[in-house]
Amino acid sequence: MKKRGALITPQIQTILNSSERDEKIKALFADMHSYDIFVLCENLEDEQVAECIKALGIPTGIDLFQQFDDERKKQIFYCFNKEWMADILEEMAPDERADFVLFLPEERTEEILPLVARAQRLDIKKLINYEEGTAGSIMTTDYAYLSKDISVKEAVEKIKLQAFDRETIYYIYVIDQDRKLLGLVTLRDIIVSPSHKKVSEIMNTNVISTHVYDDKEDVARKLSDYDFLAIPVVDRENRLVGIVTVDDLMDVVEEEATEDIYKLAAAGEYIDYMKSNPFKVAQQRTMWLLILIFVGFFSAWVLEKNEDALQSAVALSFFIPLLLGAGGNAGTQSSTVVIRGLATEDIKMEDFLKVLRKEVAVGAIVGTIMAALGSVMALLLNRNHELGIVVGLSMIASVLLAVSLGALLPILFKKLKLDPALMSGPFITCIVDIVSLIIYFKIAAIIFW
Amino acid sequence: MKKRGALITPQIQTILNSSERDEKIKALFADMHSYDIFVLCENLEDEQVAECIKALGIPTGIDLFQQFDDERKKQIFYCFNKEWMADILEEMAPDERADFVLFLPEERTEEILPLVARAQRLDIKKLINYEEGTAGSIMTTDYAYLSKDISVKEAVEKIKLQAFDRETIYYIYVIDQDRKLLGLVTLRDIIVSPSHKKVSEIMNTNVISTHVYDDKEDVARKLSDYDFLAIPVVDRENRLVGIVTVDDLMDVVEEEATEDIYKLAAAGEYIDYMKSNPFKVAQQRTMWLLILIFVGFFSAWVLEKNEDALQSAVALSFFIPLLLGAGGNAGTQSSTVVIRGLATEDIKMEDFLKVLRKEVAVGAIVGTIMAALGSVMALLLNRNHELGIVVGLSMIASVLLAVSLGALLPILFKKLKLDPALMSGPFITCIVDIVSLIIYFKIAAIIFW
Repeated sequence: MKKRGALITPQIQTILNSSERDEKIKALFADMHSYDIFVLCENLEDEQVAECIKALGIPTGIDLFQQFDDERKKQIFYCFNKEWMADILEEMAPDERADFVLFLPEERTEEILPLVARAQRLDIKKLINYEEGTAGSIMTTDYAYLSKDISVKEAVEKIKLQAFDRETIYYIYVIDQDRKLLGLVTLRDIIVSPSHKKVSEIMNTNVISTHVYDDKEDVARKLSDYDFLAIPVVDRENRLVGIVTVDDLMDVVEEEATEDIYKLAAAGEYIDYMKSNPFKVAQQRTMWLLILIFVGFFSAWVLEKNEDALQSAVALSFFIPLLLGAGGNAGTQSSTVVIRGLATEDIKMEDFLKVLRKEVAVGAIVGTIMAALGSVMALLLNRNHELGIVVGLSMIASVLLAVSLGALLPILFKKLKLDPALMSGPFITCIVDIVSLIIYFKIAAIIFW
Repeated sequence: MKKRGALITPQIQTILNSSERDEKIKALFADMHSYDIFVLCENLEDEQVAECIKALGIPTGIDLFQQFDDERKKQIFYCFNKEWMADILEEMAPDERADFVLFLPEERTEEILPLVARAQRLDIKKLINYEEGTAGSIMTTDYAYLSKDISVKEAVEKIKLQAFDRETIYYIYVIDQDRKLLGLVTLRDIIVSPSHKKVSEIMNTNVISTHVYDDKEDVARKLSDYDFLAIPVVDRENRLVGIVTVDDLMDVVEEEATEDIYKLAAAGEYIDYMKSNPFKVAQQRTMWLLILIFVGFFSAWVLEKNEDALQSAVALSFFIPLLLGAGGNAGTQSSTVVIRGLATEDIKMEDFLKVLRKEVAVGAIVGTIMAALGSVMALLLNRNHELGIVVGLSMIASVLLAVSLGALLPILFKKLKLDPALMSGPFITCIVDIVSLIIYFKIAAIIFW
């Protein structure tokens, strides 16, 4: 796809410099999905994209505009005059529009908003007030609705009128004059129902809805559990204020996974990597590294306290990286599996003891295999039986500790209503490092002296 | 939700033991979504669930059955007699049915399949042949279709007939007598078009489709890029063989993220954790731990080669965990960000140099901060200026190496058409460990002696 975009770029540029360019642009992109047009236009200059959008007009040009990310949208937006800017804001999907307005600098929006039609302006003002991460922040106000007392035949006429500018007409919400949510009819229900029936007779009154302040990740989970195409968003009085559609939620699921992955690597909050400068990226990552270094300081301190032992048996130090690596890796595996399991709800809070038992059993198996291997390595390198035993025993202890903490700490954090992902591999590794070193020297002291 | 399920369990059990239980079960679950019924029934015994399914009948009972995971489905399935088993297989959604049949032991399916109606039997045989992970393996054959020469009015009648048993009727595919895919009409198109128009006049002929052997993750990405509700699956001759709907793909996105997370933690392939015994879990995890230990062996070897240095300056060993921790954590951050970026296509192959430059810049910033801190710690613990300098310089080198490898190796692996996630934090950490130790002793040799 990328290649195709790069190849066609000069062709579009030639058209943009020719006469009758609007017609030629329209012909070039005729019948194409806006995502495909986006792929072809991605490599153009901002002004050239703006020209294409103008040529394509409403709605295709707006659909194309909406394919770009916020940063690029802003650059392209600045290429238009104020009238066009206002047109674009009026025609965008309400959810995308609110996100974009929030992204624009305030002085710019204050300049343009007065030019936007009143209805859309009020809609923007309403939507931008919902806190990021809530259902309200991702919902659209372009939903299809009906009143309950009309017939199916009348309903079809009403839906036809709404079909052009609604995000979906496949789920239609039944509301009363106060916009209170009464029921749901799908377009499938309407198609198969006799035309004389009342909407109230065919609607499903047991509507699953979500509250406007609900977390968007919970909304995604609900939609996925129920296999819905859209879910209605209501306020405290059960008034319908918007809908969240499934296409917006695929992105939420992906974003959520990325955030979790960043946390698991102690890489800070998710930021747009390609667009952030190194200072911004470093800032995201340093906080965790500093915490880990402070914890790591105690490892150095433990070693310093055992200076005499190290002095008299320097070979002890050879196996420190191996020992810490074993514990760290085993702990990372275990905490990752538990944290992900909690996130996808494959592991539930009440499974607490089961998980701990399983991790300890796994730790015993894995630890024994690694210890055997570690002992053999110690013997190979150092030809010292006692050292082999010290390394082996310490490795079993270290792995058992690591998997137990990897299982316990994320569940404990969830219990305390903290984010389990804070107890990720790097953090568990630091704690295991310190305790493993203490155990290592204790065992050495018993066996050597 | 879980609580509600646990509370109502005794109530359902009482009903199941009473007279007129079928009516009472139906009344209890009237108008409820099958996911809600599932939540209420989850804690019942297998036989009790089977009784509920029988009482609810077709289609609600089948919908309920489909909510359980394969293992639980199997247990419940075994509670039915053969006639019921055949009925259930006939009524299940084709995609779910094929997955379930693949999950059943072969001797069991050979027993039941002859009782299943011929059409469904052939459908099962066709679907189970697609390799796992392909579009064919997740598609359903219950799609709605039309021929191109009928009018919109006739189309509505055809759709009404198909509405009851199709996965979706919102996307309707236009095919010729050889089932070749000609176009797509949405139910929205049909609702808004004049009834005398031909389907061929309103259909979109530029249909985005996917091949039956395409990777399901690519299908998920396509569906998400285009914001479709479903995507048609075609064979080599462009014949329509099935569709993949958006609700199946939310699960694919989540599964994909879980698999990636497991790889990033070197935790092996994803398995159902709660249902696997400790030996199975240990088996998944051991392979990677053994590789990491073998690599770790070289750390011990490097240390052993520097025995004299350690002997004469035992304090050198104090800072080994700190040094390796800094490199390991920085490398984990960098490789995780790059691997995830490649997976979500936020980072593209051609960004190679940009990513490397950025990581080196980030490494320089982060490394300097950590080195400063590390030096101070060395001074605090050991009051030795030279050691402070050795630790600081080694930390900068180690972090720079770690972030470079974290950026380079995943991209290189992708270039070689290998899985970038193999170059995850734990693996990078091992390599960085060894090289960092070599650098550490080289710097020490220069500064101390």
